[in-house]
Amino acid sequence: MTPAASVLLTDLYQLTMLQAYHDAGMAETAVFEFFVRRLRPGRGFLLAAGLEQALESLEQLRFTARELEWLASTRRFSADFLASLETLRFTGDVHAMPEGTVFFPNEPILRVTAPIAQAQLAETRLINLLHFETLIASKAARSVLMAPDRLLVDFGLRRAHGAEAGLLAARASFLAGFSGTSTVLAGERFGIPLFGTMAHSFIQAHDDEALAFEHFAHAQPDNVVLLIDTWDTEAAAHKVVALAPRLKRAGIRIKGVRIDSGDLAEHARKVRRILDAGGLGQVIIFASGDLDEFALRDMLAAGAPVDGFGVGTHMDTSSDLPYLDCAYKLQEYAGRARRKRSEGKATWPGRKQVYRHNDAGGRMVGDIVTLEGDAQAGEPLLIPVMRGGRRLAQRPALTDIRSHAAASLAGLPEPLRRLEAFDYPVQLAPALHELAAEVDRRTFSFQSN
Amino acid sequence: MTPAASVLLTDLYQLTMLQAYHDAGMAETAVFEFFVRRLRPGRGFLLAAGLEQALESLEQLRFTARELEWLASTRRFSADFLASLETLRFTGDVHAMPEGTVFFPNEPILRVTAPIAQAQLAETRLINLLHFETLIASKAARSVLMAPDRLLVDFGLRRAHGAEAGLLAARASFLAGFSGTSTVLAGERFGIPLFGTMAHSFIQAHDDEALAFEHFAHAQPDNVVLLIDTWDTEAAAHKVVALAPRLKRAGIRIKGVRIDSGDLAEHARKVRRILDAGGLGQVIIFASGDLDEFALRDMLAAGAPVDGFGVGTHMDTSSDLPYLDCAYKLQEYAGRARRKRSEGKATWPGRKQVYRHNDAGGRMVGDIVTLEGDAQAGEPLLIPVMRGGRRLAQRPALTDIRSHAAASLAGLPEPLRRLEAFDYPVQLAPALHELAAEVDRRTFSFQSN
Repeated sequence: MTPAASVLLTDLYQLTMLQAYHDAGMAETAVFEFFVRRLRPGRGFLLAAGLEQALESLEQLRFTARELEWLASTRRFSADFLASLETLRFTGDVHAMPEGTVFFPNEPILRVTAPIAQAQLAETRLINLLHFETLIASKAARSVLMAPDRLLVDFGLRRAHGAEAGLLAARASFLAGFSGTSTVLAGERFGIPLFGTMAHSFIQAHDDEALAFEHFAHAQPDNVVLLIDTWDTEAAAHKVVALAPRLKRAGIRIKGVRIDSGDLAEHARKVRRILDAGGLGQVIIFASGDLDEFALRDMLAAGAPVDGFGVGTHMDTSSDLPYLDCAYKLQEYAGRARRKRSEGKATWPGRKQVYRHNDAGGRMVGDIVTLEGDAQAGEPLLIPVMRGGRRLAQRPALTDIRSHAAASLAGLPEPLRRLEAFDYPVQLAPALHELAAEVDRRTFSFQSN
Repeated sequence: MTPAASVLLTDLYQLTMLQAYHDAGMAETAVFEFFVRRLRPGRGFLLAAGLEQALESLEQLRFTARELEWLASTRRFSADFLASLETLRFTGDVHAMPEGTVFFPNEPILRVTAPIAQAQLAETRLINLLHFETLIASKAARSVLMAPDRLLVDFGLRRAHGAEAGLLAARASFLAGFSGTSTVLAGERFGIPLFGTMAHSFIQAHDDEALAFEHFAHAQPDNVVLLIDTWDTEAAAHKVVALAPRLKRAGIRIKGVRIDSGDLAEHARKVRRILDAGGLGQVIIFASGDLDEFALRDMLAAGAPVDGFGVGTHMDTSSDLPYLDCAYKLQEYAGRARRKRSEGKATWPGRKQVYRHNDAGGRMVGDIVTLEGDAQAGEPLLIPVMRGGRRLAQRPALTDIRSHAAASLAGLPEPLRRLEAFDYPVQLAPALHELAAEVDRRTFSFQSN
């Protein structure tokens, strides 16, 4: 469980709108949905993540006395409105795609049905969480697809955007199929396997590289992965070979070496030969430094003898696509469907469901987005997860989410599994088009009064 | 003051190295420096930010009993090493460039001098904070330079990467010259001015747009900025004109309108004409939606009558450059200079100072990076900020940091102020080259033993 973010971690306009809803006596049920509007070319699919933190943020939605005092001090809000916030809790319903489900633009992955003040207030943090974890899970899945049988470790905390980004990137990449992370807090908080041994500073502080290796091996005898690129990668590999017998006599086995700079594939080949010739065929080679899914693909396609990869900055910032064009939009209020028609940002009204069609072999062949009541063939992807503010099931284990993600990714059409361009068919059902036209007719008649 | 992040928000290798330093009895003073290695073309300068949070992280550096118990449960560390962590505090010195100082690649902005365990352990979080705030301040400064006399508001929380990114992006953009933020918590925590009124959902929930405007105006009479692009921007502008006299009779003045979609410059021109013809010449036009520094430049160059801009996603994710190639590197240990020579990542050894030369008009003409003792003409940019773990001065007011940033940006060479390509001269002094050669000779003699 992540520590609760303050309810003040929101946009000011949520609070000014709540004041206005309060004054106007507008307290009916609203339906909001979170979805991605579009993906840029080259990014064919998304992997849903962040639901667990999103539900926590709803469970924790409340104003403390101190926060209400501070809001009063801004003189922006009326006393009776602020008094009404004292008892505000989330009492609504949530439908969502389980974390680890593959999805596509225009498919909602979360629907909130609640009194409008609650559903509106929750907006900023829900987007903040669902956007980020989905962004990182979707990026991480690409490395998993390119290097399915290799050890993949998240190394990105230092260049992740702040504390929570680092922590949640570890979670999102693990659920997408990574083996673990270097972020200690993610081990403590989420039980994610931890990896890490030494930085260049450790070698530099020793001057003598071989002595640094030996010190480390004795201090962490079960975790001996030696960083060999501080000065001369191949020379360091020879030192590892020279050191191995002495360590063996002390009962210590060298597990691996890490290369962090230069032409990683070329160094890996040379180092592999040195290790093998030195009787260290079991010692693995781990590579890191500026890696992304394409670097992994190219190294493995070139037959580089690399057993594991540390993937950091490019994944934890989703550097090629650092944000998704996503939204949390009002689809219904007081029992009536709604939409906005802003240029380039029009939305589909109503409560939606997504049905997925798989072929006999379990591969996805197409989705239909339609209204909730408009049953279609195929598997419905949105399921009820919260009712009346309470979860409908125990929180799933992260390892189970990870298994679901693996199954979902296994169902991707082949071109998407190879990260190739492919337009996965997502059909918008006639019922959606009809409702949109009906909403437009009603809205137009209102506006022309 | 931001809530303390757990000391476990670090890379596992920091702890495994600390175990090895402990076992080897290595506890001498280490000197680490944080710097950016290089900038990609099109990005000519950086703006230092994050020092305040970095110093807080050093002040708060400690292991709780619960964290030590959890570390013990991992069976990765020895009992006497973990016992030594109970009393670990940061007792070292810090030199830094003040926040809001313009700087360039290869110029350290922070130097930590401390027993190696402390300086090493602090690495991950120091990078995590300095990298992110510097990234965002440097991005935000570009919008400030392009629209120096306009209202600029940070709208990015929802697509920032998690809670802390949203909060610190508000801080970093404000110190770079933004007028404020929509992030309420940044108002409470840092005293940053808050902006925000309504989302499309507010309009949609009403069906009748004019009624939505009226409800809002009565609920927030001092803060009437009306969102007019939900259905038809110009039609909504006419409704604003029609509403104004009725509100005026109730003592309410319309401050502005916001346009969030479509061709913003074109809509702004049409809306300006409608408002002016309706006697609302004082009503400002605020634009938002997918904005960055280039969109601002182009709109203003085209004479678009826009008085303020909400800049969100592109700034809070630094979307064109979502990370900096930065490092925190060991420069000295036990009184001897150190460097790594990894390919493409070699560092300059020793404790450094940066001297800046300004012309008679106060414009920057060039910097020299040299060793601390090697005094040069010009203004030294790194100053002592912490000694023996204690701050040497009160924390500066954020508004003072903002003034310093404005002065620093005013000194940029003209091409950089216009965001044009320009290689600002940063000279590495002979003393640095000499020390590097000396370190290489010594390291080589060690490695060839």
